[in-house]
Amino acid sequence: MPCCRIEHDTLGSYEIPKDAYYGIQTMRAKENFPITNYRPHPQLIRSFIMVKKAAALANMEVGLLDKAIGQAIIQSADEILSGALADQFIVDAIQGGAGTSINMNVNEVLANRAIEILGGTKGDYSVISPNNHVNMSQSTNDTFPTAIRLTTLRLAHQLLEELVSLEETFLAKAQEFDDVVKVGRTHLQDAVPIRLGQEFGAYARALKRDMQRLRTAMESLYEVNLGATAVGTGLNASKEYIQLALKYLRKISGLPIKGAEHLVDGTQNTDVLAAFSGTLRVLALTMSKIANDIRLMASGPRAGLHEINLPPLQPGSSIMPGKVNPVIPEVVNQVAFQVLGNDHTIALAVEAGQLDLNVMEPVIAFNLFQSLDILRNALRVFRTRCLQGITANREHCQEMVEKSVGVVTALSPLIGYEAASKLAKEALTSNKTIKELIQQKGLLGSSELEKFLSPRALTEPGIKAARPA
Amino acid sequence: MPCCRIEHDTLGSYEIPKDAYYGIQTMRAKENFPITNYRPHPQLIRSFIMVKKAAALANMEVGLLDKAIGQAIIQSADEILSGALADQFIVDAIQGGAGTSINMNVNEVLANRAIEILGGTKGDYSVISPNNHVNMSQSTNDTFPTAIRLTTLRLAHQLLEELVSLEETFLAKAQEFDDVVKVGRTHLQDAVPIRLGQEFGAYARALKRDMQRLRTAMESLYEVNLGATAVGTGLNASKEYIQLALKYLRKISGLPIKGAEHLVDGTQNTDVLAAFSGTLRVLALTMSKIANDIRLMASGPRAGLHEINLPPLQPGSSIMPGKVNPVIPEVVNQVAFQVLGNDHTIALAVEAGQLDLNVMEPVIAFNLFQSLDILRNALRVFRTRCLQGITANREHCQEMVEKSVGVVTALSPLIGYEAASKLAKEALTSNKTIKELIQQKGLLGSSELEKFLSPRALTEPGIKAARPA
Amino acid sequence: MPCCRIEHDTLGSYEIPKDAYYGIQTMRAKENFPITNYRPHPQLIRSFIMVKKAAALANMEVGLLDKAIGQAIIQSADEILSGALADQFIVDAIQGGAGTSINMNVNEVLANRAIEILGGTKGDYSVISPNNHVNMSQSTNDTFPTAIRLTTLRLAHQLLEELVSLEETFLAKAQEFDDVVKVGRTHLQDAVPIRLGQEFGAYARALKRDMQRLRTAMESLYEVNLGATAVGTGLNASKEYIQLALKYLRKISGLPIKGAEHLVDGTQNTDVLAAFSGTLRVLALTMSKIANDIRLMASGPRAGLHEINLPPLQPGSSIMPGKVNPVIPEVVNQVAFQVLGNDHTIALAVEAGQLDLNVMEPVIAFNLFQSLDILRNALRVFRTRCLQGITANREHCQEMVEKSVGVVTALSPLIGYEAASKLAKEALTSNKTIKELIQQKGLLGSSELEKFLSPRALTEPGIKAARPA
Amino acid sequence: MPCCRIEHDTLGSYEIPKDAYYGIQTMRAKENFPITNYRPHPQLIRSFIMVKKAAALANMEVGLLDKAIGQAIIQSADEILSGALADQFIVDAIQGGAGTSINMNVNEVLANRAIEILGGTKGDYSVISPNNHVNMSQSTNDTFPTAIRLTTLRLAHQLLEELVSLEETFLAKAQEFDDVVKVGRTHLQDAVPIRLGQEFGAYARALKRDMQRLRTAMESLYEVNLGATAVGTGLNASKEYIQLALKYLRKISGLPIKGAEHLVDGTQNTDVLAAFSGTLRVLALTMSKIANDIRLMASGPRAGLHEINLPPLQPGSSIMPGKVNPVIPEVVNQVAFQVLGNDHTIALAVEAGQLDLNVMEPVIAFNLFQSLDILRNALRVFRTRCLQGITANREHCQEMVEKSVGVVTALSPLIGYEAASKLAKEALTSNKTIKELIQQKGLLGSSELEKFLSPRALTEPGIKAARPA
Repeated sequence: MPCCRIEHDTLGSYEIPKDAYYGIQTMRAKENFPITNYRPHPQLIRSFIMVKKAAALANMEVGLLDKAIGQAIIQSADEILSGALADQFIVDAIQGGAGTSINMNVNEVLANRAIEILGGTKGDYSVISPNNHVNMSQSTNDTFPTAIRLTTLRLAHQLLEELVSLEETFLAKAQEFDDVVKVGRTHLQDAVPIRLGQEFGAYARALKRDMQRLRTAMESLYEVNLGATAVGTGLNASKEYIQLALKYLRKISGLPIKGAEHLVDGTQNTDVLAAFSGTLRVLALTMSKIANDIRLMASGPRAGLHEINLPPLQPGSSIMPGKVNPVIPEVVNQVAFQVLGNDHTIALAVEAGQLDLNVMEPVIAFNLFQSLDILRNALRVFRTRCLQGITANREHCQEMVEKSVGVVTALSPLIGYEAASKLAKEALTSNKTIKELIQQKGLLGSSELEKFLSPRALTEPGIKAARPA
Repeated sequence: MPCCRIEHDTLGSYEIPKDAYYGIQTMRAKENFPITNYRPHPQLIRSFIMVKKAAALANMEVGLLDKAIGQAIIQSADEILSGALADQFIVDAIQGGAGTSINMNVNEVLANRAIEILGGTKGDYSVISPNNHVNMSQSTNDTFPTAIRLTTLRLAHQLLEELVSLEETFLAKAQEFDDVVKVGRTHLQDAVPIRLGQEFGAYARALKRDMQRLRTAMESLYEVNLGATAVGTGLNASKEYIQLALKYLRKISGLPIKGAEHLVDGTQNTDVLAAFSGTLRVLALTMSKIANDIRLMASGPRAGLHEINLPPLQPGSSIMPGKVNPVIPEVVNQVAFQVLGNDHTIALAVEAGQLDLNVMEPVIAFNLFQSLDILRNALRVFRTRCLQGITANREHCQEMVEKSVGVVTALSPLIGYEAASKLAKEALTSNKTIKELIQQKGLLGSSELEKFLSPRALTEPGIKAARPA
Repeated sequence: MPCCRIEHDTLGSYEIPKDAYYGIQTMRAKENFPITNYRPHPQLIRSFIMVKKAAALANMEVGLLDKAIGQAIIQSADEILSGALADQFIVDAIQGGAGTSINMNVNEVLANRAIEILGGTKGDYSVISPNNHVNMSQSTNDTFPTAIRLTTLRLAHQLLEELVSLEETFLAKAQEFDDVVKVGRTHLQDAVPIRLGQEFGAYARALKRDMQRLRTAMESLYEVNLGATAVGTGLNASKEYIQLALKYLRKISGLPIKGAEHLVDGTQNTDVLAAFSGTLRVLALTMSKIANDIRLMASGPRAGLHEINLPPLQPGSSIMPGKVNPVIPEVVNQVAFQVLGNDHTIALAVEAGQLDLNVMEPVIAFNLFQSLDILRNALRVFRTRCLQGITANREHCQEMVEKSVGVVTALSPLIGYEAASKLAKEALTSNKTIKELIQQKGLLGSSELEKFLSPRALTEPGIKAARPA
Repeated sequence: MPCCRIEHDTLGSYEIPKDAYYGIQTMRAKENFPITNYRPHPQLIRSFIMVKKAAALANMEVGLLDKAIGQAIIQSADEILSGALADQFIVDAIQGGAGTSINMNVNEVLANRAIEILGGTKGDYSVISPNNHVNMSQSTNDTFPTAIRLTTLRLAHQLLEELVSLEETFLAKAQEFDDVVKVGRTHLQDAVPIRLGQEFGAYARALKRDMQRLRTAMESLYEVNLGATAVGTGLNASKEYIQLALKYLRKISGLPIKGAEHLVDGTQNTDVLAAFSGTLRVLALTMSKIANDIRLMASGPRAGLHEINLPPLQPGSSIMPGKVNPVIPEVVNQVAFQVLGNDHTIALAVEAGQLDLNVMEPVIAFNLFQSLDILRNALRVFRTRCLQGITANREHCQEMVEKSVGVVTALSPLIGYEAASKLAKEALTSNKTIKELIQQKGLLGSSELEKFLSPRALTEPGIKAARPA
């Protein structure tokens, strides 16, 4: 029994494994692009299949696609959406040709499965043709951008769910730590007091903005260029087909997508992908800053800030017994760096669009999907394996506030910046606290003093004492 | 007569030029940061002065600031807003200390001018103190972020005006070139026909999205942390003062600013600046892609695409007589690269925020303002010195469409992808046009053919002929 | 029969699959870091095993490691180096903890296999301990940096081989195209003539510099910090052990590695990795520029520059019959963008080192190895599937040179820049060639003219005619 | 008296200020590129003038340039090199046209001053022509790249001098702090002891590598493409001229420059500039890491690590009296970010080279020179205003080492990793030191213990006690 079947195209012929549902274009691509050894993202395949199904329904409805052929294509699509043939999408994630190879991989698998359904033999494209039937009224240049948007939207929705949970966790911690007064720090130097809960509340608010930016960027992705075909002019796609294909795709995907208002624009410009990735970039910056703060506050246990404790997850060192490291914040930092690098690649690829198409879309998609995946994964472990278990070292925080000279700021409206500066200097030189100096110098009565230097009060707006104007 | 006066602070004393309105803190900073030799952006100074005036008004109203002192500060501020003392802001644009030096430079100039107004001698801070009076209820950590936002907003409004004009220009050109059918190109390879007007229309739409993103990013900047003081807790700023200061600042600046909902967040997080710069980044990507396209389309005059002509602005070469180069698109590309680099710096600086402050704000501001300035400048010359004068080489475009084999795509629904591929190959090998081959093979009648291959019709959605399903 | 065994550490206990050679630290890491789903690079594992074998040999020789235990570890290492147990290295490529988890994964697999060899039961670390025996005298902080360097060096050697072949290909093409005179282009505008072979020769020379830079950057990687242990001080590693471990590692790896001169430096600083990645970055820039040029020169076939033809590899479009696209240069561009993004991530991670360690090394390694892999892959297909098959369109090139006005430059020394400019202008306006105008105006005699405007002569240094000084 | 003279070129005429030495090409450029308002770097002008002088000498020697004209050009050049006419170079630093405008600005100023010397009237280019005489045998495309390299080399030499001083300072501090034992930190967590001097020594070594990389990258810049003219073919430059021009340029510049081996390569490729900037990038990463460490170690004074003190330079806060901030390390961080952004711009511009020229060189030069300037400035203030004055808090460092549990690592070879882990845990839970626990448990005799846990000994390679194999 032969191992292979032979398929032909205008450039020649190729041996295809007998059982393979993909065909000659897929094989050519597999050999042309042995680059990353990563396959296209499974969710991208899923999106492509949705597009193909919507197109088949529309082509049938406008009378261009034979019903039997159309139904076979649709059945194939449904099987794949249910999990079948997942191993047949074998082209490399990074490929030349602006995604033509992934589109043809999808077209060939659908065609060959549909041929089987109609009783034909895989490879006999006289029954159903990957180009003429499965790809009817379509081009890579409209189906791939559409599939990228569908995939991004689904992954973004998953990321948003994680972000919502993360924000809730920060808000809960803000509540839990609302009474933990600690030394505020600017320039890493002791400053005026702040509450740990205020800091966690600030993280929550930064994330809230990240979510808002993400949602806004997603809005632009609902607009797809399906029907644009090769260069956005819609050649070989009728207006009726375009409207129907969009209608069916909305139904199949469950996403409120709409047609691009200007199909040429929708085909040649990828700014919305750069803008979307840009919101992931800012999210990565936010997360990296938070992870850095958590690591700083957890530094120690003895020769560091030691304000908070992270849940121990694994022995921290192969050589230093008993060491426990902030491994989860560290992975958050690294994921942030990876997302920033991915975003850099995306920006370069977006800039490289020329005339009527951006042929660099495969590398854009690859990086965009990876960023969405690893951010979602990192945020989940950050929340469940780190943040939720953080505890505060209340006594240590309080002790440091009492020792700190930053509280002298509250005296400034009363005695002036210059006098207060001298007091601060004296405290540092003499190794005393500000409180001790005030008492020693009789600057304030003792009940005044208590009220005045109550750490909690110093963490809210207001002037504790001032000379009249 | 002495050249200098002596000023003191807790760290020692300094000679200050006799006529200088700045004082010891400015002098220290001048010596500490001889980095770029660029001074702070004049619009940043202007914003700072607005903040100081608003603060003085609020401090007077809540009864903390003596009326005579307050009035003198306000008069000084008004003089500076009218253009006076512009040469007194001498600290370096890039400085350590999170902007304290620029804040103190402003405080000292205002104080010394106000001292003069009250009949005192410059440097006699017993009359008016830069810290106690001018900086009353304020910190660098709330006034500098506020001034950055005011400045960014004003510069962004100017950029938006340029963008509006640029979009109009592209739309006008889209109209003018609506009938210029040319070879569409994907992968830089001849594809199906497109109209030059469609391409210019696509540029306009990309810019429209850039404007929308810019406007959205500006929304976040209306929220300022004035009143947050040192670490966002508002220590030494009363709630009444905060509300009044915001009210006065709205009035003085003419911008609808509002107080940050969470002042600690507003003080430690700079994500909104990264996000704003991110919109400039995407705009830069858009502009670079457009400039690249314009340069490609104008390539030639004989051995290039030669589809359009740019207005000649300067002899292009010191050695090659008669050469004219696309110098304006080239400067647009370079400005785009500069903005992308600036944005990179900003992202690094935003990530570097630690705990309760981001001390890297000076470098953020420096790059943000430069990006806004050079984008505005580049877009203006792009519009007025290049785009408005572009003309199309209509005959050449038409001739190329007729020669191109891409039109075979329109036959595909009728004769199938495979047959059409063979036709294309034959055209290339035999050096014939598709039209000639159709006629030669009698694939279509001549009136059908005319209709079928009308270049204009091929630039709109639709199938020209197809086999029934 | 139980599915699992139970292992313990100071933080608790874990169920480990009965057959697994990894242990509790690996399992903890697997659960802590579900980030990319990519495993560590197989070559990194290989390098780690080499380090462990060298350490065991050294520890035995200095009398710290029991011979039987040592031999069992060495036998395990040899088995893995021969391909065994490749599926046991399951931790995520991106992980917190500075690589401790990958080090412990290696330690555990070696320990458990060695325990088996000694007749023990997997998990019974009283026989052989991952920490006390396999990791003896070592820390993650010296073994991981060492393994990263070994891996990078091996992958870099493979890349260099590809680069050598690529340079040869360019040189061969430079030879082949040495007589193809074409229009030179600056600013994408027609300039003076150049030979296609000169351009391909220039590509070869740029690559030569890239190779030189790569080799120089590799020099720094031969210096490893093995023996530095936790913070570079060498605690728990004797000087004798260090020298022996290096000696054995040189032998096992076949690479001329040497010990870092300053172990604290070698442990905390990762600048050499940034510098190495920086050379890949410049290579990526070189490759992207070359790929862009190839795509420009191959543009057409009718409405483009059409100077060269690329071998057709796959039908270029799912909708446009007969279209063939430059898919290989396009994948080279994308790989270049990916490498630039990876390099960006690496730079961020390098900057994030703090005090005595850079904990971001896992993400550095991940990106570095990917860059090396995909560059090698892309260069190979670029050479074998594109460059070797490029042909020149000699007639078209010659025709364009004759039509081009750039040749007027050669007249400039004779008639002056201004007069030559007017001639160029007249040629363009009147649609004539420079040659025709010279003849018409009798500027040169005909034999002079032939010699003077011989395209080939114009591609070499020299003045063809000039007024005497 | 008229304010202006009129100059003409092939595109029309322009009013030039009567006293201006620049001419019509400069005026056109001034109006075409109102981008940054920064002028070209003075050192770039200087380099250009050197090139022009060398070219004039060579042109005279080969008999192409009239002696009187040549001498006048040389005299003009010498005057400018001596400081004259510095205000006549007015084109924008970022300009389209690949530097033609700056080249013509230089040509025009030299021509007009030379015309004056010969008794002519400025603007009367029949006496001396900017193109025919000053620019003889040259193009922007060889003189500008040459001038960029000369400038970079001079600025790099200055940077190297700063680096040498900086390394010396770190080495001196390494000596000074050689006996300061402190807590080593990995992951920001307390680890085994290290000496502050070791850390400063490690900084010195990283800098040493940066210097080495810088020197290596400079090597490539000595190769200049002078004589390449328009596209690297050398058209209109004789071989004799090329050799002479290089000889004179070596003499004038004092730099050992040599001619590019392949002039086409030298004209179209800018990889050496990316590679050079890449070394500045790694230096920036090194500096940012060091600045971060310094800021961490100086954190406090009470609620931070407080291991070192920085010299106080300016009051740190406008609101918090007595606060002193690490303003110099902060400006080092910001300069590092700026350099990283500049390098990003340079990489983008290098990638954008097309065919026979990279027209983005002006933006490359602008960023390269700024990076060199600000690095040099920042390193100088870092050294003189920060590093030299750093003092160590010896008692605090020692106290923290004694309290830290990291020293338990030294026991691991004796009692095993597991037992040592339990000891560490017990220390942390019971709030005891490791020493106390060892004594309490009688693990070591007291003289053994002293020797064993001597902090200094723990900072050198070696095993303090171990079970025999």
